[in-house]
Amino acid sequence: KLFHYLFKWTLISLIVGGLVGSATAIFLLALKAATNYREANLLIISLLPIGGLIIGFTYFWLGKGVEKGNNLLLEEYYQSKKRIPFKMAPLVLFGTVATHLFGGSAGREGTAVQIGGAIADQFTKLFRLHDNERKILLIMGMSAGFAAVFGTPLAGSVFALEVLIIGRIRYEAIFPSLIVAIIADYFCVEVWNVPHTVYVISEVAQMNLPNLGWTIVAGICFGLTAMLFSRLKVFWKSLFSKIKFAPLRPFIGGIFIAGFVFFAGTTKYIGLGIPIIEEAFHTQLTSYDFLIKVVLTAFTLGAGFKGGEVTPLFFMGATLGNALFLILPLPMSLLAGMGFVAVFAGATNTPLACIIMGIELFGIEAGLYIALACVTAYFFSGHTSVYTSQIIGSPKH
Amino acid sequence: KLFHYLFKWTLISLIVGGLVGSATAIFLLALKAATNYREANLLIISLLPIGGLIIGFTYFWLGKGVEKGNNLLLEEYYQSKKRIPFKMAPLVLFGTVATHLFGGSAGREGTAVQIGGAIADQFTKLFRLHDNERKILLIMGMSAGFAAVFGTPLAGSVFALEVLIIGRIRYEAIFPSLIVAIIADYFCVEVWNVPHTVYVISEVAQMNLPNLGWTIVAGICFGLTAMLFSRLKVFWKSLFSKIKFAPLRPFIGGIFIAGFVFFAGTTKYIGLGIPIIEEAFHTQLTSYDFLIKVVLTAFTLGAGFKGGEVTPLFFMGATLGNALFLILPLPMSLLAGMGFVAVFAGATNTPLACIIMGIELFGIEAGLYIALACVTAYFFSGHTSVYTSQIIGSPKH
Repeated sequence: KLFHYLFKWTLISLIVGGLVGSATAIFLLALKAATNYREANLLIISLLPIGGLIIGFTYFWLGKGVEKGNNLLLEEYYQSKKRIPFKMAPLVLFGTVATHLFGGSAGREGTAVQIGGAIADQFTKLFRLHDNERKILLIMGMSAGFAAVFGTPLAGSVFALEVLIIGRIRYEAIFPSLIVAIIADYFCVEVWNVPHTVYVISEVAQMNLPNLGWTIVAGICFGLTAMLFSRLKVFWKSLFSKIKFAPLRPFIGGIFIAGFVFFAGTTKYIGLGIPIIEEAFHTQLTSYDFLIKVVLTAFTLGAGFKGGEVTPLFFMGATLGNALFLILPLPMSLLAGMGFVAVFAGATNTPLACIIMGIELFGIEAGLYIALACVTAYFFSGHTSVYTSQIIGSPKH
Repeated sequence: KLFHYLFKWTLISLIVGGLVGSATAIFLLALKAATNYREANLLIISLLPIGGLIIGFTYFWLGKGVEKGNNLLLEEYYQSKKRIPFKMAPLVLFGTVATHLFGGSAGREGTAVQIGGAIADQFTKLFRLHDNERKILLIMGMSAGFAAVFGTPLAGSVFALEVLIIGRIRYEAIFPSLIVAIIADYFCVEVWNVPHTVYVISEVAQMNLPNLGWTIVAGICFGLTAMLFSRLKVFWKSLFSKIKFAPLRPFIGGIFIAGFVFFAGTTKYIGLGIPIIEEAFHTQLTSYDFLIKVVLTAFTLGAGFKGGEVTPLFFMGATLGNALFLILPLPMSLLAGMGFVAVFAGATNTPLACIIMGIELFGIEAGLYIALACVTAYFFSGHTSVYTSQIIGSPKH
């Protein structure tokens, strides 16, 4: 019986991992092409309202039943209703690439997780899985997408288990979740040759009581920023929902964002913002960069553009860490790295996945700082979440 | 309110972490002295039955209410009955050092966790903590003890959360558990200058599909070994319980162990066995070393000698990994490192803590292999546990 389980889920992992890893590789390549095109042809940003209209109408005509994105995956996990439509995958891929092409501020983990979930759930019928097994399959899809899009298989496998319920983890799916993450990452990096950005914490301070205190202070800042972002996203969303005709929302939102980019005279706050994230590890940046990214990303997503939250959360955290270097006696790259994962931990309530991700990206040397920052941010971000459907299993305090 | 919580638990962490870290440092120094003395005066092993008698009578006369050790901590967590007697700490410290001095085969994590739990619980009254807060305090004690005894604060903080219920983690105590672990480890290493053994995985194979398969095969072996050990411990314990007068059990057990050491003509299977664990990372050892350690440790603990299980589990895993090098195409040090944490993961049902411990000890490079081995071993060790009081929260499959 055990070996049957092992064989069955390893086989499913191979198929799902291979497909999701490949789809994520294509997504990453498309995203890169879109970003490069935009940076070479900045005038396209003036078309952002039009891009918004296109995304809006695409979801209006074709997206019925998949608009909820990540929340739909969570809700199907809590209470199985019907199969995730496969169209979720191509729609969110198209919507996210368009958002980045025209210059919205958004991420990619939501996209990858939705691609993963939508692909995985197609096998529910093929393998004749009952309800509990389907839950494992949904977890696998999310794990595979997350693992492949960031090149962090361990974090992906824990994220998919951890994101479901605030304050709890259950282990039923830990084995398939890990295997599928490894395979999806393998396909993305080794088979499709899509590499990931390397971030380096160049200096780690000695852990002692003062530094422990400073890390908690930094963690509190990261947690409050996460809370601000989650609340602002809800705020913009409810404001935009006053526009009854949904396709108009990203159109109008696009006008404001394009206007902001024009007046700010910089593209550093739109798109994924990876160059700025990299800079935050070694160059002193403007101290309010993180705040602009908070507002702009919440606005972009609230207006109905597509994409994830996590890369912007990396941006907010790394730049806030960078700004904290002005007042806290810790190395700049350490503060940037701590913020990178800690704001994410606070906003998604997944501290363990974020600790593991920090270690996968930056190595174990900074492990204690990363862990303390993530746990403090988790604790201080309140019971808010960027995933509004997330259920509270155990209150934080 | 949040800042009050933060301040309160940070203060308690400072006190508990400082005390438990210091007590663990003393314990480690005493253990080292006992081991050195034994290896320099091998004849003392012939006194093992007398040593057993001393330990047996000590617990018989003074140990009423603390014989259950780790299980008592778990039971008090599930259902609060009464304060853990402080005497648990000195008794288990004395019993463990005596066990190692005379040549039993045992570990040290149980001892550290019990010292931690017993010290921490003394503050329940002082800080006027109610039941739920006391649970946090018990977790903190276990976390601090584990963190300090192995020099792995991240693993310690997760272990204390994870060991309580099989298949689940709850996050209520994640913040104090981490802080106290960092402080306890700091006190042990930096204040008391007690260093830890460094193990090195010198070569990591490229992750690909065949190696993924071999890792699962290895993980299955580690898991089955963990199950064997858990069952054998119960078996010996119930066999020895037929001897009605408890102090006689370690006396009689001691005769057999001393006899075994005499006939085997080696001390490599008794005590902590750290030199053999180190060798397993680079020298081919006898292929059945792990099996002898399984039987001897289960026998030692079943007979009523004191000490933990974890360092022997490291021994079993590392030597089994070493033996698997004969048949699996993975590097020896990688297999030894995988086994080191994976048998532990299977026997205590704490895969996340063991993954994190593996990464803390060996670095992130071997992370995927370590994680896969731990999760597979967890999955294949059945619903057995070296902690017989552990509650099953979610069945493994």
